[in-house]
Amino acid sequence: MNTYRPALSNNALPLTHAIDVIDEKGRVQQIEIPGERPLTIYLDKKELVTLMTLGGAPEALTLGYIRNQRLVNDLSEIESIQVDWETDSVAVKTSIPFEVITEKTAKKTVTSGCGQGTMFGDLMTEFDSLVLPLGSNLRQEHIYQLIEKIRTNPSIYKKAGSVHACAVFKNLLSGPELVYFIEDVGRHNAVDAISGLMWLDGLSGGDLIFYTTGRLTSEMVIKGGQMGIPFLLTRSGVTQMGLSLAQQIQMTILARCSGDHFLIYEGAERILLNASQGLQV
Amino acid sequence: MNTYRPALSNNALPLTHAIDVIDEKGRVQQIEIPGERPLTIYLDKKELVTLMTLGGAPEALTLGYIRNQRLVNDLSEIESIQVDWETDSVAVKTSIPFEVITEKTAKKTVTSGCGQGTMFGDLMTEFDSLVLPLGSNLRQEHIYQLIEKIRTNPSIYKKAGSVHACAVFKNLLSGPELVYFIEDVGRHNAVDAISGLMWLDGLSGGDLIFYTTGRLTSEMVIKGGQMGIPFLLTRSGVTQMGLSLAQQIQMTILARCSGDHFLIYEGAERILLNASQGLQV
Repeated sequence: MNTYRPALSNNALPLTHAIDVIDEKGRVQQIEIPGERPLTIYLDKKELVTLMTLGGAPEALTLGYIRNQRLVNDLSEIESIQVDWETDSVAVKTSIPFEVITEKTAKKTVTSGCGQGTMFGDLMTEFDSLVLPLGSNLRQEHIYQLIEKIRTNPSIYKKAGSVHACAVFKNLLSGPELVYFIEDVGRHNAVDAISGLMWLDGLSGGDLIFYTTGRLTSEMVIKGGQMGIPFLLTRSGVTQMGLSLAQQIQMTILARCSGDHFLIYEGAERILLNASQGLQV
Repeated sequence: MNTYRPALSNNALPLTHAIDVIDEKGRVQQIEIPGERPLTIYLDKKELVTLMTLGGAPEALTLGYIRNQRLVNDLSEIESIQVDWETDSVAVKTSIPFEVITEKTAKKTVTSGCGQGTMFGDLMTEFDSLVLPLGSNLRQEHIYQLIEKIRTNPSIYKKAGSVHACAVFKNLLSGPELVYFIEDVGRHNAVDAISGLMWLDGLSGGDLIFYTTGRLTSEMVIKGGQMGIPFLLTRSGVTQMGLSLAQQIQMTILARCSGDHFLIYEGAERILLNASQGLQV
Protein backbone atom coordinates (compact mmCIF):
# COMPACT_ATOMS: atom_id res chain seq x y z
CA MET A 1 0.00 0.00 0.00
CA ASN A 2 1.15 3.51 -0.74
CA THR A 3 1.27 5.85 2.17
CA TYR A 4 1.87 8.92 0.00
CA ARG A 5 -1.16 10.70 -1.40
CA PRO A 6 -1.03 13.88 -3.48
CA ALA A 7 -3.28 16.75 -2.37
CA LEU A 8 -6.54 16.24 -4.26
CA SER A 9 -9.55 18.47 -4.65
CA ASN A 10 -12.93 16.78 -4.21
CA ASN A 11 -14.98 18.34 -6.96
CA ALA A 12 -17.33 15.73 -8.35
CA LEU A 13 -20.20 17.21 -10.35
CA PRO A 14 -23.91 16.43 -10.02
CA LEU A 15 -24.21 13.44 -12.34
CA THR A 16 -27.67 13.76 -13.84
CA HIS A 17 -29.97 16.55 -14.86
CA ALA A 18 -33.75 16.58 -15.29
CA ILE A 19 -35.06 17.73 -18.66
CA ASP A 20 -38.43 17.81 -20.42
CA VAL A 21 -38.89 15.77 -23.58
CA ILE A 22 -41.92 15.13 -25.80
CA ASP A 23 -42.97 11.57 -26.56
CA GLU A 24 -44.48 10.18 -29.76
CA LYS A 25 -47.99 11.04 -28.54
CA GLY A 26 -47.04 14.68 -27.97
CA ARG A 27 -46.97 14.34 -24.17
CA VAL A 28 -44.32 16.12 -22.14
CA GLN A 29 -42.24 13.80 -19.93
CA GLN A 30 -39.52 14.62 -17.45
CA ILE A 31 -36.46 12.39 -17.73
CA GLU A 32 -32.90 12.39 -16.40
CA ILE A 33 -29.87 12.69 -18.67
CA PRO A 34 -26.22 12.32 -17.71
CA GLY A 35 -24.02 15.38 -17.44
CA GLU A 36 -21.10 15.88 -19.81
CA ARG A 37 -18.46 18.55 -19.34
CA PRO A 38 -15.12 19.34 -20.92
CA LEU A 39 -12.18 19.02 -18.55
CA THR A 40 -8.86 20.40 -19.78
CA ILE A 41 -5.80 18.91 -18.07
CA TYR A 42 -2.83 21.18 -17.38
CA LEU A 43 0.34 19.37 -16.35
CA ASP A 44 2.66 21.87 -14.65
CA LYS A 45 0.78 24.63 -16.49
CA LYS A 46 1.20 22.96 -19.87
CA GLU A 47 -2.11 22.16 -21.63
CA LEU A 48 -2.35 18.43 -22.31
CA VAL A 49 -5.80 17.45 -23.50
CA THR A 50 -9.51 18.12 -23.09
CA LEU A 51 -11.56 15.13 -21.93
CA MET A 52 -15.35 15.06 -22.14
CA THR A 53 -16.50 13.58 -18.86
CA LEU A 54 -19.50 12.90 -16.67
CA GLY A 55 -17.45 14.53 -13.92
CA GLY A 56 -18.12 11.99 -11.19
CA ALA A 57 -14.46 11.34 -10.38
CA PRO A 58 -12.46 14.09 -12.07
CA GLU A 59 -9.38 13.78 -9.83
CA ALA A 60 -9.13 10.01 -10.34
CA LEU A 61 -9.72 10.46 -14.08
CA THR A 62 -6.88 12.98 -14.28
CA LEU A 63 -4.53 10.73 -12.30
CA GLY A 64 -5.39 7.71 -14.43
CA TYR A 65 -5.02 9.63 -17.67
CA ILE A 66 -1.57 10.86 -16.70
CA ARG A 67 -0.59 7.39 -15.56
CA ASN A 68 -1.86 5.57 -18.66
CA GLN A 69 -0.22 8.09 -20.98
CA ARG A 70 3.03 7.37 -19.11
CA LEU A 71 3.60 11.07 -18.39
CA VAL A 72 4.43 10.51 -14.73
CA ASN A 73 5.89 7.21 -13.54
CA ASP A 74 5.70 7.54 -9.77
CA LEU A 75 2.75 8.77 -7.71
CA SER A 76 5.13 10.51 -5.31
CA GLU A 77 6.10 12.90 -8.11
CA ILE A 78 2.56 14.32 -8.15
CA GLU A 79 2.12 17.09 -5.59
CA SER A 80 -1.47 18.11 -6.20
CA ILE A 81 -4.48 17.80 -8.47
CA GLN A 82 -6.98 20.66 -8.35
CA VAL A 83 -10.17 20.51 -10.39
CA ASP A 84 -11.87 23.86 -11.10
CA TRP A 85 -15.24 23.67 -12.84
CA GLU A 86 -15.44 27.46 -13.20
CA THR A 87 -12.80 27.13 -15.90
CA ASP A 88 -13.50 23.45 -16.76
CA SER A 89 -9.88 22.67 -16.01
CA VAL A 90 -7.66 20.66 -13.71
CA ALA A 91 -4.18 21.70 -12.63
CA VAL A 92 -1.66 18.94 -11.95
CA LYS A 93 1.44 20.02 -10.07
CA THR A 94 4.47 17.73 -10.07
CA SER A 95 7.96 17.78 -8.63
CA ILE A 96 9.39 16.78 -12.01
CA PRO A 97 11.91 19.24 -13.53
CA PHE A 98 10.33 21.54 -16.11
CA GLU A 99 12.60 20.33 -18.94
CA VAL A 100 11.63 16.70 -18.35
CA ILE A 101 7.89 17.45 -18.39
CA THR A 102 8.27 19.54 -21.54
CA GLU A 103 10.09 16.72 -23.29
CA LYS A 104 7.51 14.14 -22.20
CA THR A 105 4.49 16.15 -23.25
CA ALA A 106 6.11 17.00 -26.58
CA LYS A 107 6.20 13.35 -27.57
CA LYS A 108 2.97 12.51 -25.79
CA THR A 109 0.95 9.94 -27.62
CA VAL A 110 -2.78 10.35 -27.43
CA THR A 111 -4.14 6.86 -26.87
CA SER A 112 -7.78 7.43 -26.81
CA GLY A 113 -11.35 6.51 -27.14
CA CYS A 114 -13.28 4.66 -29.79
CA GLY A 115 -10.14 3.72 -31.63
CA GLN A 116 -9.22 7.19 -32.76
CA GLY A 117 -6.00 8.80 -31.71
CA THR A 118 -3.87 5.83 -30.85
CA MET A 119 -0.18 6.05 -31.59
CA PHE A 120 0.18 2.37 -31.87
CA GLY A 121 3.85 1.55 -31.77
CA ASP A 122 4.87 2.69 -28.30
CA LEU A 123 1.93 1.07 -26.58
CA MET A 124 2.45 -2.22 -28.35
CA THR A 125 6.09 -2.42 -27.36
CA GLU A 126 5.12 -2.12 -23.71
CA PHE A 127 2.17 -4.48 -24.13
CA ASP A 128 4.37 -7.23 -25.53
CA SER A 129 6.28 -7.47 -22.27
CA LEU A 130 3.22 -7.84 -20.02
CA VAL A 131 2.90 -10.99 -17.91
CA LEU A 132 -0.39 -11.86 -16.19
CA PRO A 133 -0.56 -14.34 -13.27
CA LEU A 134 -1.38 -17.81 -14.59
CA GLY A 135 -2.28 -19.42 -11.26
CA SER A 136 -5.37 -17.36 -10.46
CA ASN A 137 -8.81 -18.70 -11.18
CA LEU A 138 -12.46 -17.70 -11.00
CA ARG A 139 -15.35 -19.96 -9.95
CA GLN A 140 -18.64 -20.11 -11.87
CA GLU A 141 -20.71 -19.16 -8.82
CA HIS A 142 -18.44 -16.16 -8.27
CA ILE A 143 -19.04 -15.05 -11.86
CA TYR A 144 -22.78 -15.12 -11.14
CA GLN A 145 -22.28 -13.22 -7.87
CA LEU A 146 -20.32 -10.57 -9.72
CA ILE A 147 -22.99 -10.19 -12.43
CA GLU A 148 -25.65 -9.89 -9.71
CA LYS A 149 -23.63 -7.27 -7.81
CA ILE A 150 -23.36 -5.18 -10.96
CA ARG A 151 -27.06 -5.64 -11.70
CA THR A 152 -28.13 -4.42 -8.26
CA ASN A 153 -25.53 -1.67 -7.85
CA PRO A 154 -27.06 1.83 -7.97
CA SER A 155 -26.00 3.47 -11.22
CA ILE A 156 -26.37 6.51 -13.40
CA TYR A 157 -27.07 4.14 -16.27
CA LYS A 158 -30.29 2.90 -14.65
CA LYS A 159 -31.34 6.47 -13.94
CA ALA A 160 -30.30 8.22 -17.13
CA GLY A 161 -28.68 5.82 -19.61
CA SER A 162 -25.95 6.96 -22.00
CA VAL A 163 -22.96 6.13 -19.81
CA HIS A 164 -20.58 3.19 -19.58
CA ALA A 165 -19.57 1.58 -16.31
CA CYS A 166 -16.30 -0.03 -15.33
CA ALA A 167 -15.85 -1.91 -12.07
CA VAL A 168 -13.02 -3.67 -10.29
CA PHE A 169 -13.60 -6.57 -7.90
CA LYS A 170 -11.24 -8.34 -5.54
CA ASN A 171 -11.18 -12.04 -6.46
CA LEU A 172 -11.57 -13.50 -2.94
CA LEU A 173 -12.13 -17.11 -1.91
CA SER A 174 -15.39 -15.96 -0.35
CA GLY A 175 -16.52 -14.37 -3.62
CA PRO A 176 -15.99 -11.16 -5.57
CA GLU A 177 -15.81 -7.94 -3.53
CA LEU A 178 -16.58 -4.67 -5.32
CA VAL A 179 -13.71 -2.21 -4.93
CA TYR A 180 -14.42 0.49 -7.54
CA PHE A 181 -17.43 1.33 -9.68
CA ILE A 182 -17.04 4.25 -12.09
CA GLU A 183 -19.37 5.48 -14.79
CA ASP A 184 -18.56 8.01 -17.48
CA VAL A 185 -19.76 9.14 -20.88
CA GLY A 186 -16.80 7.30 -22.38
CA ARG A 187 -15.53 3.81 -21.58
CA HIS A 188 -11.99 5.11 -21.70
CA ASN A 189 -12.58 7.73 -19.07
CA ALA A 190 -14.11 5.13 -16.75
CA VAL A 191 -11.16 2.78 -17.11
CA ASP A 192 -8.66 5.64 -16.72
CA ALA A 193 -10.40 6.76 -13.51
CA ILE A 194 -10.17 3.23 -12.12
CA SER A 195 -6.49 3.12 -13.01
CA GLY A 196 -6.09 6.39 -11.10
CA LEU A 197 -7.82 4.98 -8.02
CA MET A 198 -5.64 1.83 -8.13
CA TRP A 199 -2.57 4.06 -8.30
CA LEU A 200 -3.72 6.07 -5.27
CA ASP A 201 -4.46 2.93 -3.28
CA GLY A 202 -1.31 1.12 -4.40
CA LEU A 203 -3.40 -1.76 -5.73
CA SER A 204 -1.87 -4.12 -8.29
CA GLY A 205 -4.05 -6.10 -10.65
CA GLY A 206 -3.09 -9.73 -10.11
CA ASP A 207 -5.94 -10.63 -7.75
CA LEU A 208 -8.54 -8.37 -9.34
CA ILE A 209 -11.37 -8.84 -11.82
CA PHE A 210 -12.26 -6.08 -14.28
CA TYR A 211 -15.85 -5.67 -15.46
CA THR A 212 -17.18 -3.25 -18.08
CA THR A 213 -20.52 -2.65 -19.73
CA GLY A 214 -18.68 -1.68 -22.92
CA ARG A 215 -17.22 -3.71 -25.74
CA LEU A 216 -13.75 -5.17 -25.38
CA THR A 217 -11.97 -3.51 -28.26
CA SER A 218 -8.18 -3.53 -28.55
CA GLU A 219 -7.75 -0.49 -26.32
CA MET A 220 -9.80 -1.91 -23.46
CA VAL A 221 -7.73 -5.11 -23.51
CA ILE A 222 -4.52 -3.06 -23.64
CA LYS A 223 -5.61 -0.97 -20.63
CA GLY A 224 -6.71 -4.05 -18.69
CA GLY A 225 -3.35 -5.62 -19.43
CA GLN A 226 -1.48 -2.48 -18.37
CA MET A 227 -3.29 -2.69 -15.04
CA GLY A 228 -2.11 -6.32 -14.72
CA ILE A 229 -5.64 -7.73 -14.32
CA PRO A 230 -6.02 -11.34 -15.54
CA PHE A 231 -9.84 -11.31 -15.87
CA LEU A 232 -11.82 -9.03 -18.20
CA LEU A 233 -15.59 -9.44 -18.13
CA THR A 234 -18.14 -7.60 -20.25
CA ARG A 235 -21.88 -7.54 -20.71
CA SER A 236 -21.16 -6.76 -24.35
CA GLY A 237 -18.90 -8.44 -26.95
CA VAL A 238 -15.30 -8.59 -28.09
CA THR A 239 -13.62 -7.51 -31.32
CA GLN A 240 -11.15 -9.70 -33.16
CA MET A 241 -8.21 -7.54 -32.20
CA GLY A 242 -9.30 -7.37 -28.56
CA LEU A 243 -9.34 -11.15 -28.61
CA SER A 244 -5.99 -11.60 -30.31
CA LEU A 245 -4.32 -9.20 -27.86
CA ALA A 246 -5.86 -11.14 -24.96
CA GLN A 247 -4.46 -14.37 -26.43
CA GLN A 248 -1.05 -12.77 -26.65
CA ILE A 249 -0.85 -12.03 -22.92
CA GLN A 250 -2.95 -15.03 -21.80
CA MET A 251 -5.76 -12.90 -20.41
CA THR A 252 -9.09 -14.50 -19.55
CA ILE A 253 -11.99 -12.91 -21.43
CA LEU A 254 -15.66 -13.49 -20.61
CA ALA A 255 -18.29 -11.72 -22.70
CA ARG A 256 -22.09 -11.60 -22.97
CA CYS A 257 -22.17 -11.83 -19.15
CA SER A 258 -25.83 -11.48 -18.19
CA GLY A 259 -28.01 -13.31 -15.68
CA ASP A 260 -26.73 -16.89 -15.60
CA HIS A 261 -25.15 -16.75 -19.03
CA PHE A 262 -21.62 -15.99 -20.14
CA LEU A 263 -19.26 -17.01 -22.93
CA ILE A 264 -15.57 -17.74 -22.37
CA TYR A 265 -13.67 -16.25 -25.30
CA GLU A 266 -10.15 -16.81 -24.05
CA GLY A 267 -8.21 -18.20 -21.09
CA ALA A 268 -10.75 -20.91 -20.13
CA GLU A 269 -8.10 -22.61 -17.99
CA ARG A 270 -8.64 -19.96 -15.31
CA ILE A 271 -12.41 -20.59 -15.15
CA LEU A 272 -13.73 -23.29 -12.78
CA LEU A 273 -17.08 -24.38 -14.16
CA ASN A 274 -19.43 -26.30 -11.88
CA ALA A 275 -18.08 -29.83 -11.48
CA SER A 276 -21.30 -31.56 -12.56
CA GLN A 277 -21.04 -30.02 -15.99
CA GLY A 278 -17.35 -30.40 -16.67
CA LEU A 279 -15.64 -28.73 -19.57
CA GLN A 280 -16.65 -30.33 -22.84
CA VAL A 281 -13.83 -29.04 -24.98
CA MET B 1 -22.74 17.14 -57.42
CA ASN B 2 -18.97 16.88 -57.62
CA THR B 3 -17.61 15.53 -60.83
CA TYR B 4 -14.08 15.20 -59.47
CA ARG B 5 -13.19 12.01 -57.62
CA PRO B 6 -9.74 11.19 -56.27
CA ALA B 7 -8.28 7.82 -57.22
CA LEU B 8 -9.39 5.44 -54.46
CA SER B 9 -8.36 1.89 -53.69
CA ASN B 10 -11.21 -0.50 -52.91
CA ASN B 11 -9.81 -2.50 -50.02
CA ALA B 12 -12.62 -3.30 -47.61
CA LEU B 13 -11.77 -6.12 -45.20
CA PRO B 14 -13.90 -9.16 -44.39
CA LEU B 15 -16.04 -7.80 -41.57
CA THR B 16 -16.61 -10.76 -39.28
CA HIS B 17 -14.65 -13.78 -38.18
CA ALA B 18 -15.88 -17.10 -36.77
CA ILE B 19 -14.40 -18.15 -33.44
CA ASP B 20 -15.06 -20.88 -30.88
CA VAL B 21 -16.19 -19.89 -27.40
CA ILE B 22 -17.24 -21.95 -24.37
CA ASP B 23 -20.60 -21.28 -22.75
CA GLU B 24 -21.51 -21.49 -19.05
CA LYS B 25 -22.34 -25.20 -19.39
CA GLY B 26 -18.90 -25.95 -20.85
CA ARG B 27 -20.21 -26.40 -24.40
CA VAL B 28 -18.21 -25.14 -27.36
CA GLN B 29 -20.14 -22.72 -29.61
CA GLN B 30 -19.09 -21.08 -32.84
CA ILE B 31 -19.91 -17.36 -32.99
CA GLU B 32 -19.01 -14.41 -35.20
CA ILE B 33 -17.05 -11.44 -33.93
CA PRO B 34 -16.31 -8.18 -35.75
CA GLY B 35 -12.87 -7.53 -37.12
CA GLU B 36 -10.75 -4.69 -35.78
CA ARG B 37 -7.53 -3.52 -37.41
CA PRO B 38 -5.21 -0.58 -36.95
CA LEU B 39 -5.08 1.77 -39.93
CA THR B 40 -2.33 4.39 -39.91
CA ILE B 41 -3.03 7.43 -42.07
CA TYR B 42 -0.12 9.04 -43.93
CA LEU B 43 -0.88 12.44 -45.43
CA ASP B 44 1.72 13.20 -48.09
CA LYS B 45 4.02 10.70 -46.36
CA LYS B 46 3.57 12.35 -42.96
CA GLU B 47 2.15 10.03 -40.27
CA LEU B 48 -1.09 11.47 -38.89
CA VAL B 49 -2.88 9.00 -36.67
CA THR B 50 -3.70 5.33 -36.18
CA LEU B 51 -7.42 4.52 -36.20
CA MET B 52 -8.78 1.20 -34.97
CA THR B 53 -11.40 0.18 -37.51
CA LEU B 54 -13.68 -2.60 -38.65
CA GLY B 55 -12.22 -1.92 -42.10
CA GLY B 56 -15.48 -1.95 -44.05
CA ALA B 57 -14.97 1.45 -45.69
CA PRO B 58 -11.33 2.40 -45.13
CA GLU B 59 -11.09 4.87 -48.01
CA ALA B 60 -14.25 6.76 -46.92
CA LEU B 61 -13.05 6.70 -43.31
CA THR B 62 -9.73 8.24 -44.32
CA LEU B 63 -11.43 10.91 -46.41
CA GLY B 64 -13.87 11.77 -43.64
CA TYR B 65 -11.15 11.88 -41.00
CA ILE B 66 -9.06 14.30 -43.07
CA ARG B 67 -12.15 16.39 -43.81
CA ASN B 68 -13.37 16.55 -40.21
CA GLN B 69 -9.92 17.40 -38.90
CA ARG B 70 -9.92 20.28 -41.41
CA LEU B 71 -6.58 19.12 -42.89
CA VAL B 72 -7.78 19.45 -46.48
CA ASN B 73 -10.53 21.90 -47.42
CA ASP B 74 -11.32 20.93 -50.98
CA LEU B 75 -11.83 17.42 -52.36
CA SER B 76 -10.07 18.41 -55.60
CA GLU B 77 -6.84 18.80 -53.63
CA ILE B 78 -6.82 15.05 -52.88
CA GLU B 79 -5.18 13.09 -55.68
CA SER B 80 -5.39 9.56 -54.32
CA ILE B 81 -6.13 7.38 -51.31
CA GLN B 82 -4.49 3.96 -51.26
CA VAL B 83 -5.22 1.51 -48.45
CA ASP B 84 -2.65 -1.25 -47.92
CA TRP B 85 -3.55 -3.89 -45.33
CA GLU B 86 -0.14 -5.56 -45.61
CA THR B 87 1.23 -2.59 -43.71
CA ASP B 88 -2.08 -1.55 -42.06
CA SER B 89 -1.68 1.87 -43.60
CA VAL B 90 -3.29 4.28 -46.01
CA ALA B 91 -1.41 6.78 -48.16
CA VAL B 92 -3.16 10.05 -48.98
CA LYS B 93 -1.60 12.06 -51.78
CA THR B 94 -2.56 15.71 -52.18
CA SER B 95 -1.67 18.57 -54.49
CA ILE B 96 -1.13 20.84 -51.48
CA PRO B 97 2.37 22.35 -51.16
CA PHE B 98 4.55 20.45 -48.69
CA GLU B 99 5.04 23.49 -46.40
CA VAL B 100 1.27 24.01 -46.07
CA ILE B 101 0.63 20.36 -45.16
CA THR B 102 3.48 20.39 -42.65
CA GLU B 103 2.08 23.47 -40.96
CA LYS B 104 -1.46 22.05 -40.85
CA THR B 105 -0.45 18.70 -39.40
CA ALA B 106 1.78 20.39 -36.83
CA LYS B 107 -1.18 22.17 -35.27
CA LYS B 108 -3.54 19.30 -35.96
CA THR B 109 -6.11 18.87 -33.24
CA VAL B 110 -7.09 15.33 -32.47
CA THR B 111 -10.85 15.42 -32.04
CA SER B 112 -11.61 11.90 -31.22
CA GLY B 113 -13.60 9.17 -29.78
CA CYS B 114 -15.30 8.71 -26.44
CA GLY B 115 -14.52 12.24 -25.36
CA GLN B 116 -10.78 11.82 -25.15
CA GLY B 117 -8.45 13.81 -27.29
CA THR B 118 -10.52 16.82 -28.14
CA MET B 119 -8.79 20.16 -28.47
CA PHE B 120 -11.91 22.01 -27.70
CA GLY B 121 -11.39 25.65 -28.63
CA ASP B 122 -10.93 25.49 -32.40
CA LEU B 123 -13.88 23.21 -32.95
CA MET B 124 -16.17 25.34 -30.83
CA THR B 125 -15.30 28.52 -32.74
CA GLU B 126 -16.37 26.86 -35.97
CA PHE B 127 -19.42 25.27 -34.36
CA ASP B 128 -20.73 28.61 -33.13
CA SER B 129 -21.12 29.83 -36.70
CA LEU B 130 -23.16 26.84 -37.93
CA VAL B 131 -26.66 27.48 -39.28
CA LEU B 132 -29.08 24.60 -39.88
CA PRO B 133 -32.15 24.95 -42.15
CA LEU B 134 -35.18 25.86 -40.06
CA GLY B 135 -37.84 25.13 -42.66
CA SER B 136 -37.31 21.38 -42.97
CA ASN B 137 -39.56 18.99 -41.12
CA LEU B 138 -40.03 15.28 -40.49
CA ARG B 139 -43.35 13.44 -40.28
CA GLN B 140 -44.15 10.91 -37.56
CA GLU B 141 -44.86 8.11 -40.05
CA HIS B 142 -41.52 8.80 -41.73
CA ILE B 143 -39.77 8.45 -38.36
CA TYR B 144 -41.38 5.01 -38.02
CA GLN B 145 -40.38 4.09 -41.58
CA LEU B 146 -36.81 5.10 -40.84
CA ILE B 147 -36.69 3.03 -37.63
CA GLU B 148 -38.11 0.04 -39.53
CA LYS B 149 -35.57 0.43 -42.33
CA ILE B 150 -32.75 0.37 -39.80
CA ARG B 151 -34.29 -2.63 -38.03
CA THR B 152 -34.49 -4.69 -41.19
CA ASN B 153 -31.23 -3.56 -42.79
CA PRO B 154 -28.61 -6.35 -42.89
CA SER B 155 -25.90 -5.51 -40.38
CA ILE B 156 -22.73 -6.70 -38.77
CA TYR B 157 -24.32 -5.85 -35.43
CA LYS B 158 -27.01 -8.48 -35.87
CA LYS B 159 -24.41 -11.04 -36.89
CA ALA B 160 -21.61 -10.25 -34.46
CA GLY B 161 -22.50 -7.36 -32.15
CA SER B 162 -19.86 -4.97 -30.81
CA VAL B 163 -20.11 -2.34 -33.54
CA HIS B 164 -21.95 0.94 -33.89
CA ALA B 165 -23.90 1.92 -36.97
CA CYS B 166 -24.45 5.34 -38.49
CA ALA B 167 -26.84 5.94 -41.36
CA VAL B 168 -27.87 8.87 -43.50
CA PHE B 169 -31.32 9.12 -45.10
CA LYS B 170 -32.70 11.55 -47.64
CA ASN B 171 -35.72 13.28 -46.13
CA LEU B 172 -38.11 12.92 -49.09
CA LEU B 173 -41.82 13.73 -49.26
CA SER B 174 -42.39 10.06 -50.08
CA GLY B 175 -40.49 8.96 -46.97
CA PRO B 176 -36.90 8.48 -45.83
CA GLU B 177 -34.51 6.92 -48.37
CA LEU B 178 -31.39 5.21 -47.07
CA VAL B 179 -28.26 6.71 -48.64
CA TYR B 180 -25.39 5.43 -46.47
CA PHE B 181 -25.14 2.77 -43.78
CA ILE B 182 -21.76 2.34 -42.12
CA GLU B 183 -20.77 0.23 -39.15
CA ASP B 184 -17.50 0.41 -37.27
CA VAL B 185 -15.99 -0.54 -33.92
CA GLY B 186 -16.17 3.14 -32.96
CA ARG B 187 -19.04 5.57 -33.45
CA HIS B 188 -16.60 8.23 -34.53
CA ASN B 189 -15.18 6.15 -37.33
CA ALA B 190 -18.67 5.42 -38.65
CA VAL B 191 -19.62 9.10 -38.69
CA ASP B 192 -16.28 10.09 -40.24
CA ALA B 193 -16.76 7.51 -43.00
CA ILE B 194 -20.20 8.92 -43.76
CA SER B 195 -18.75 12.41 -43.89
CA GLY B 196 -16.19 11.08 -46.38
CA LEU B 197 -18.90 9.57 -48.58
CA MET B 198 -20.90 12.82 -48.51
CA TRP B 199 -17.78 14.69 -49.56
CA LEU B 200 -17.20 12.31 -52.47
CA ASP B 201 -20.81 12.58 -53.60
CA GLY B 202 -21.00 16.35 -53.08
CA LEU B 203 -23.95 15.90 -50.73
CA SER B 204 -24.82 18.69 -48.31
CA GLY B 205 -26.73 17.97 -45.13
CA GLY B 206 -29.79 20.22 -45.27
CA ASP B 207 -32.24 17.63 -46.57
CA LEU B 208 -30.73 14.66 -44.78
CA ILE B 209 -31.50 12.75 -41.58
CA PHE B 210 -28.69 11.24 -39.51
CA TYR B 211 -29.28 8.08 -37.47
CA THR B 212 -26.88 6.36 -35.08
CA THR B 213 -27.11 3.42 -32.72
CA GLY B 214 -24.71 5.24 -30.37
CA ARG B 215 -25.24 7.88 -27.73
CA LEU B 216 -25.42 11.51 -28.75
CA THR B 217 -22.51 12.94 -26.81
CA SER B 218 -21.09 16.38 -27.55
CA GLU B 219 -18.82 15.13 -30.30
CA MET B 220 -21.58 13.36 -32.21
CA VAL B 221 -23.70 16.53 -32.17
CA ILE B 222 -20.68 18.59 -33.27
CA LYS B 223 -20.00 16.23 -36.19
CA GLY B 224 -23.67 16.15 -37.18
CA GLY B 225 -23.68 19.95 -37.10
CA GLN B 226 -20.50 20.16 -39.17
CA MET B 227 -22.24 18.01 -41.80
CA GLY B 228 -25.13 20.50 -41.77
CA ILE B 229 -27.77 17.87 -40.96
CA PRO B 230 -30.81 19.23 -39.05
CA PHE B 231 -32.06 15.85 -37.71
CA LEU B 232 -30.11 13.56 -35.39
CA LEU B 233 -31.83 10.34 -34.36
CA THR B 234 -30.53 7.67 -32.01
CA ARG B 235 -31.71 4.38 -30.57
CA SER B 236 -29.75 5.38 -27.46
CA GLY B 237 -29.75 8.55 -25.29
CA VAL B 238 -28.28 12.03 -25.17
CA THR B 239 -25.84 13.67 -22.76
CA GLN B 240 -26.41 17.09 -21.30
CA MET B 241 -23.69 18.68 -23.40
CA GLY B 242 -24.91 16.95 -26.55
CA LEU B 243 -28.29 18.50 -25.83
CA SER B 244 -27.04 21.98 -25.05
CA LEU B 245 -24.96 22.05 -28.25
CA ALA B 246 -28.03 20.96 -30.23
CA GLN B 247 -30.01 23.80 -28.64
CA GLN B 248 -27.30 26.23 -29.64
CA ILE B 249 -27.57 25.45 -33.36
CA GLN B 250 -31.30 24.60 -33.32
CA MET B 251 -30.79 20.98 -34.26
CA THR B 252 -33.65 18.50 -33.87
CA ILE B 253 -32.76 15.57 -31.60
CA LEU B 254 -34.80 12.39 -31.29
CA ALA B 255 -33.60 9.68 -28.92
CA ARG B 256 -34.79 6.28 -27.66
CA CYS B 257 -36.05 5.62 -31.19
CA SER B 258 -37.31 2.04 -31.17
CA GLY B 259 -40.40 0.39 -32.63
CA ASP B 260 -43.17 2.99 -32.42
CA HIS B 261 -41.55 4.98 -29.63
CA PHE B 262 -39.30 8.01 -29.66
CA LEU B 263 -38.61 11.03 -27.50
CA ILE B 264 -38.09 14.52 -28.88
CA TYR B 265 -35.29 16.14 -26.90
CA GLU B 266 -34.87 19.29 -28.92
CA GLY B 267 -36.22 21.08 -32.00
CA ALA B 268 -39.81 19.75 -31.73
CA GLU B 269 -40.96 22.44 -34.18
CA ARG B 270 -39.48 20.37 -37.04
CA ILE B 271 -41.46 17.23 -36.07
CA LEU B 272 -44.97 16.77 -37.48
CA LEU B 273 -46.78 14.45 -35.07
CA ASN B 274 -49.97 12.71 -36.24
CA ALA B 275 -52.76 15.28 -36.34
CA SER B 276 -55.13 13.29 -34.16
CA GLN B 277 -52.74 13.52 -31.25
CA GLY B 278 -51.62 17.12 -31.52
CA LEU B 279 -48.70 18.46 -29.55
CA GLN B 280 -49.62 18.79 -25.87
CA VAL B 281 -46.90 21.21 -24.83
